[in-house]
Amino acid sequence: MTGCCTVLGAFLFEYDTPRIVLIRSRKVGLMNRTVQLLILAYVIGWVFVWEKGYQETDSVVSSVTVKAKGVTMTNTSKLGFRIWDVADYVIPAQEENSVFIMTNMVITMNQTQGLCPEIPGKTTVCETDANCTAGSAGTHSSGVATGRCVSFNGTLKTCEVAAWCPVEDDTEVPKPAFLKAAENFTLLVKNNIWYPKFNFSKRNILPNITTAYLKTCIYDAKTDPFCPIFRLGKIVESAGHSFQDIAIEGGIMGIQIKWNCNLDRAASFCLPRYSFRRLDTRDLAHNVSPGYNFRFAKYYSDLNGAEHRTLIKAYGIRFDIIVFGKAGKFDIIPTMINIGSGLALLGVATVLCDVIVLYCMKKRYYYREKKYKYVEDYEQGLGNQMDQ
Amino acid sequence: MTGCCTVLGAFLFEYDTPRIVLIRSRKVGLMNRTVQLLILAYVIGWVFVWEKGYQETDSVVSSVTVKAKGVTMTNTSKLGFRIWDVADYVIPAQEENSVFIMTNMVITMNQTQGLCPEIPGKTTVCETDANCTAGSAGTHSSGVATGRCVSFNGTLKTCEVAAWCPVEDDTEVPKPAFLKAAENFTLLVKNNIWYPKFNFSKRNILPNITTAYLKTCIYDAKTDPFCPIFRLGKIVESAGHSFQDIAIEGGIMGIQIKWNCNLDRAASFCLPRYSFRRLDTRDLAHNVSPGYNFRFAKYYSDLNGAEHRTLIKAYGIRFDIIVFGKAGKFDIIPTMINIGSGLALLGVATVLCDVIVLYCMKKRYYYREKKYKYVEDYEQGLGNQMDQ
Amino acid sequence: MTGCCTVLGAFLFEYDTPRIVLIRSRKVGLMNRTVQLLILAYVIGWVFVWEKGYQETDSVVSSVTVKAKGVTMTNTSKLGFRIWDVADYVIPAQEENSVFIMTNMVITMNQTQGLCPEIPGKTTVCETDANCTAGSAGTHSSGVATGRCVSFNGTLKTCEVAAWCPVEDDTEVPKPAFLKAAENFTLLVKNNIWYPKFNFSKRNILPNITTAYLKTCIYDAKTDPFCPIFRLGKIVESAGHSFQDIAIEGGIMGIQIKWNCNLDRAASFCLPRYSFRRLDTRDLAHNVSPGYNFRFAKYYSDLNGAEHRTLIKAYGIRFDIIVFGKAGKFDIIPTMINIGSGLALLGVATVLCDVIVLYCMKKRYYYREKKYKYVEDYEQGLGNQMDQ
Repeated sequence: MTGCCTVLGAFLFEYDTPRIVLIRSRKVGLMNRTVQLLILAYVIGWVFVWEKGYQETDSVVSSVTVKAKGVTMTNTSKLGFRIWDVADYVIPAQEENSVFIMTNMVITMNQTQGLCPEIPGKTTVCETDANCTAGSAGTHSSGVATGRCVSFNGTLKTCEVAAWCPVEDDTEVPKPAFLKAAENFTLLVKNNIWYPKFNFSKRNILPNITTAYLKTCIYDAKTDPFCPIFRLGKIVESAGHSFQDIAIEGGIMGIQIKWNCNLDRAASFCLPRYSFRRLDTRDLAHNVSPGYNFRFAKYYSDLNGAEHRTLIKAYGIRFDIIVFGKAGKFDIIPTMINIGSGLALLGVATVLCDVIVLYCMKKRYYYREKKYKYVEDYEQGLGNQMDQ
Repeated sequence: MTGCCTVLGAFLFEYDTPRIVLIRSRKVGLMNRTVQLLILAYVIGWVFVWEKGYQETDSVVSSVTVKAKGVTMTNTSKLGFRIWDVADYVIPAQEENSVFIMTNMVITMNQTQGLCPEIPGKTTVCETDANCTAGSAGTHSSGVATGRCVSFNGTLKTCEVAAWCPVEDDTEVPKPAFLKAAENFTLLVKNNIWYPKFNFSKRNILPNITTAYLKTCIYDAKTDPFCPIFRLGKIVESAGHSFQDIAIEGGIMGIQIKWNCNLDRAASFCLPRYSFRRLDTRDLAHNVSPGYNFRFAKYYSDLNGAEHRTLIKAYGIRFDIIVFGKAGKFDIIPTMINIGSGLALLGVATVLCDVIVLYCMKKRYYYREKKYKYVEDYEQGLGNQMDQ
Repeated sequence: MTGCCTVLGAFLFEYDTPRIVLIRSRKVGLMNRTVQLLILAYVIGWVFVWEKGYQETDSVVSSVTVKAKGVTMTNTSKLGFRIWDVADYVIPAQEENSVFIMTNMVITMNQTQGLCPEIPGKTTVCETDANCTAGSAGTHSSGVATGRCVSFNGTLKTCEVAAWCPVEDDTEVPKPAFLKAAENFTLLVKNNIWYPKFNFSKRNILPNITTAYLKTCIYDAKTDPFCPIFRLGKIVESAGHSFQDIAIEGGIMGIQIKWNCNLDRAASFCLPRYSFRRLDTRDLAHNVSPGYNFRFAKYYSDLNGAEHRTLIKAYGIRFDIIVFGKAGKFDIIPTMINIGSGLALLGVATVLCDVIVLYCMKKRYYYREKKYKYVEDYEQGLGNQMDQ
């Protein structure tokens, strides 16, 4: 018990600090301080000031709503004179982080369940019934083959299918795009972000934006960088593409909102940055399944209850709102980790200088003598100690 | 070769350890141990126990389905007596991480393509045809102007537009909300989470929840914190808002599911925590484009094939299910990084005490003598060595 | 001023390095080098080579489009002969990261607003009007009760409700699934990923995939691991489930795309890895609200403008495309943090060996003498110094 107390006392009242050789040399001293300075500069300048290593970071949690505006008019032989408004060209009416604007279409009206010849193609053109396998339904066919070979028009015969008839013919996509005026439509993007770790939330409609401004503004990287209303044509152009080109076969555009916030500063410095990118990279040389389209139908009922439908293959631009960013705020742990490893790196200065002093300099034997005390294992000879 | 071996042998069989001054002093010793204790307490207590610095973390990957239930009845002069069920008020029928419940609406029935006067407004009221520009279609107009100024009602004249006629008049939103009974509708939220790094998955319908309980329970933070069925009214109230207020102009509610899991413990401790937040922050003083609404149409076909539609401007609450969280599990790398920087921090104790001992204490010269061995560059004088 | 310069000069031209005891002992030396080697091996081998600790990482930002293909035919007494194509079974027509394929359905045709008896159930069967509360609308009821008890069929009486009539009867789900042929439908998944920190983007349709290949290929883990076209049946089987089982009551399947990229290597090594997982874990013993379904309606208009609808309870498989992954690229900060803590860990070797040498070895007193220089606080006695 007493022994234990003694040991504890010795432990508590002891202070150990390494013994140091202090070499007073201009060359070595300057070198040492320079290396230390470089490491300090790196730790403080780069890790702390530039990369904000003293901050805990959090990823953004976001909620987005998009509202399209705009109306246009078309006049074709098939559909006649027609007005297109939001309820017509936004499909589906609402989505979570994206909005689809139809810009082009292949419309097949008055389809009913029945039997009709397939659209001519590599696998559908036939000479006799023997060319058509009854019951087969390939991935690209419009219906289930009946096994008969029927006349498609005066000259061609194709396999007959049970399908929604007449079958859609999408071999020719209208050029220019049917709703080419969509270039002038606008999107109002409302974005609310939240950093759960710091319980910080903000929306992209900034507090200083007035209702009057919001009614007239259009986003422009230079003049109106915080206006949340985007002209479709401008979005596509900002990403380096032509709206009229993309409108024909469709595509995906990313509206990227970057929220990089330093929460050690005032909340008003935490601002959204918009950028635009085409997400369906398309190189003309390597044109594998380009664009973006999907099919949907409007169903109607006849007097006698029979169903018919209008099938629309909708080409258009899907605008995906991609919200990303990191918020940083001072926190003790990353600070300590960075200080800790900074200190350890400072030790590198000593190691580096030691290597130079003890191995490369002329007076290396002299310095070694000063730094080291050689102790031989006394089985091999106790007297060999060289000590200064 | 032999020289090489000698060097290698010397390298392998050498052991270097710093020489230490062990100062037996109550004051300095206690100070040293106290600083070391504080650093140890920080490293062990804060970094390891509290922040679980020994764990590798992973972010959640989640899949959500939502199912709404509820039925209500309205009786208005325009629509007559009408029942509203899930297929009527959930638009679109299914989404990935959210669900929209229509609570209010402006309905415009029997629209057809045609010409009709605009709704009176700042830019649409006119005196003569000169006030209306043919072919213009502003962002907020319902159609394309024909250039004629026609009578809207007995007293007012507005510009005529080619549009879906009659044009929608959304100047007055029904108050109270049309489907105010939506307050009692319920949402069943099914959530399946996955931590890919640890290949750990769990769902929010916990193993101990029975079918019977699931048929009757309603989420309540206190009594039923794990029931995945939410009453709309309760969600909105939990977030500190009034359902009847939000129902009029719509809004976005976040249902946040937090999965913070310590996977070093049993899986049954990994539980979802629900919280609710309104995502479209709305301050009455700064009322820029409040609420949430969108337009959609139901298309009908006449006997002779002409299309007409019912346009609905749907106001409602979009419930976004936001799943977030981090799972932690013991891993050697973060443990080592934290131990490493903890050790480096322990070195700070020595540096700190050294500063006090060597610069602040009365006996500083005595201690300095013990710690340092001064070596002058021997060009400047070999004899100056002061060694203990 | 001169004093200041002297101090600065002394500071600049000084170099301090710890004094070292160099013990020449085979046992201790080997032990020391072994421990150092182990730590070095861990730091270099594990942290740097295996876990790539020298890399900065970034999480993936992704955009997904899905296109379903396939057509099938059904022949039932209720619907007669009918063809189902993409526009019929994909609901809604497009979503952001997922696609729903209807595989089964309960269809209720020609519903109109009216009064009709409820489907018999625990709470709906009645004897007299007293059993039915007028105006009540439970969570699971189809409409609002009128308070009357009416005949459901010859033998049963149920409460009358104001509802879309006739009321849906979903007690029996078709078995086998109505659209069981959906097994052969295919999904084309286009995925574009982006690592914002490194401004690196790539799509899952790799540059070497030709249009011809894309027209015929089907994903297979072994033979076609980079074909982005998936057969529904194969997806479900890969996840270890039976398609015909899941088709009856519906479910959620996750198509997981993992993009783990080492951007220090060529971009062509950054490849997507597909895996499949069922997200709505279903154990038969604990069958709480299984599967996935939702209701939607097609609205029709009568000659006289009255609305009727076809209600469809759609069971089906929702395919969620879950994209995750991390890209790493060399960066100075994590490198330095890892080197720093690695160096600090190397210090552990000395501490460890010190403990063994100074406390466990026979010659511990001899080594202690060499390492330590004891200094007593000279208040307690200056003469006690023991120095070698």
